[in-house]
Amino acid sequence: MAPIKLTTKEQIVQLLNDFDNFIFDCDGVIWLGDHPIPGSIETIKLLQDLQKTIIFVTNNSTKSRNQYTEKFTKLGLSVTKDEVFGSAYAAATYLDKIIQFPKDEKIWVMGEKGIIEELNDLGYETLGGEDERLNVKFHKDTTPFLPIDPKVGAVIAGLDTNVNYHRLAITLQYLQQPNVKFIATNIDSTFPSKGLILPGAGSIIETVAYASGREPIPCGKPSQNMLDAIVKDKNLDRSRTIMIGDRLNTDIKFGNDGNLGGTLLVLSGIETEENALKHGTPKYYSDVLGVIYDLYK
Amino acid sequence: MAPIKLTTKEQIVQLLNDFDNFIFDCDGVIWLGDHPIPGSIETIKLLQDLQKTIIFVTNNSTKSRNQYTEKFTKLGLSVTKDEVFGSAYAAATYLDKIIQFPKDEKIWVMGEKGIIEELNDLGYETLGGEDERLNVKFHKDTTPFLPIDPKVGAVIAGLDTNVNYHRLAITLQYLQQPNVKFIATNIDSTFPSKGLILPGAGSIIETVAYASGREPIPCGKPSQNMLDAIVKDKNLDRSRTIMIGDRLNTDIKFGNDGNLGGTLLVLSGIETEENALKHGTPKYYSDVLGVIYDLYK
Repeated sequence: MAPIKLTTKEQIVQLLNDFDNFIFDCDGVIWLGDHPIPGSIETIKLLQDLQKTIIFVTNNSTKSRNQYTEKFTKLGLSVTKDEVFGSAYAAATYLDKIIQFPKDEKIWVMGEKGIIEELNDLGYETLGGEDERLNVKFHKDTTPFLPIDPKVGAVIAGLDTNVNYHRLAITLQYLQQPNVKFIATNIDSTFPSKGLILPGAGSIIETVAYASGREPIPCGKPSQNMLDAIVKDKNLDRSRTIMIGDRLNTDIKFGNDGNLGGTLLVLSGIETEENALKHGTPKYYSDVLGVIYDLYK
Repeated sequence: MAPIKLTTKEQIVQLLNDFDNFIFDCDGVIWLGDHPIPGSIETIKLLQDLQKTIIFVTNNSTKSRNQYTEKFTKLGLSVTKDEVFGSAYAAATYLDKIIQFPKDEKIWVMGEKGIIEELNDLGYETLGGEDERLNVKFHKDTTPFLPIDPKVGAVIAGLDTNVNYHRLAITLQYLQQPNVKFIATNIDSTFPSKGLILPGAGSIIETVAYASGREPIPCGKPSQNMLDAIVKDKNLDRSRTIMIGDRLNTDIKFGNDGNLGGTLLVLSGIETEENALKHGTPKYYSDVLGVIYDLYK
């Protein structure tokens, strides 16, 4: 079925009748970097007024849920920590809830603060990450991270803008232990930033995946590990849930693979109307999220 | 045909009659890190006395040929620069001889000194590499490497123990230009170092390959780009040439794919006798290179 473009008030009323739960991608939908997309804040507020369940999902693992709620507050939105699902939280939840990783084992992190905070919040002890001793050049005989810690039972890797040979070399030593689990916050190859396309978590992780001959378990969109966690956590009826995002191959795939009642592609991010129509996978599409507010009022 | 183990003087005499040209892998054959393997130096000297053509090949791109000849000198061997083929030289030669890359275009390097020296030797101007301004944290607005230089027509990537997000981000910007060529010194996923297995050139390069969706042209073993360059440069008769190395999947494959007259696997590196017999690809095998000298004397 061809995607339907949202252009009338009747469509919006129907949409608001059909769905109780709205899952949002953030970047490209609500904001672009630090700049809110006009109309998005008003639309979120409208949905809040209508008592809809609102959930924000993001593959950005460098920020924790606390850091996200601060960002929402700055934009004038009242959002609580339990309405935000980042890929760092998804990875931590996967470890805790799905595989029930023991609390007395440690986790080696190749990634930033978001991952560490979420793991610590769940009571896990972490090693690596932003530890400044990893910022010096790697030497086998002087690194304080060798020999490896036998209490480490998992590696969680995400976007790491502090990546260096020291971090890669130690991470590889852990991945050479077959019993050490290997989890990725997400495997996006790139992400857009202020007009540039930069290496994403998936590209950084690919280094140690290739070196170890192992593939990580991915937790972010479009992995259903993340959606399953959200549905379980929030007790959602999938048929009354819509996924809204700006990427066909992550956001819309995420909603379709998860058998949600609907998907809405907004064109304020990286996709074009031509793409939306050609691939035909979202149920609805619109230029921006703000058309919901504009048409409803 | 099952590999033949070298155990008698008659075999050695036959070997020395059959081959005029001896191509050697270095690490695991002649030395292990900084330590010569007993008997190897004597064997090389014997071959030199017998007026054999000797060529050393290595996938290590961090050293230039000049740096290698210094290493040989320290071990008491007289080896000239033109007897050494490193993967950095192979990549530079590929650019110069095979694709005739213009001298008025520049080359972005993600790698170490060996690559820069070989390119500069051939008259190419390089950017990136060990430039200290790449050691600071990446910021789009402050990096001196943006906007990218439109004179850059190729990226050469190799093992880079200075790898960081700044280097990866800028390298990716060049690879997003479809006309910029993408060449790898080699694609070894790991290398052994003092009892550790560390991330190799291939793993580091995989980051930007994955991010850009491009595959590099590899120049080191087992790529035939390297053997073709050697055969051409030295005017070798392939049937009178033997490849000697310690890895089945690079050294022995290199010789077999290149239709050389013979291959010799030595077990002083990473392979076992069981592997040599099971996979059955080398023509000959021996515990160490030194058996040639020991049995001949």
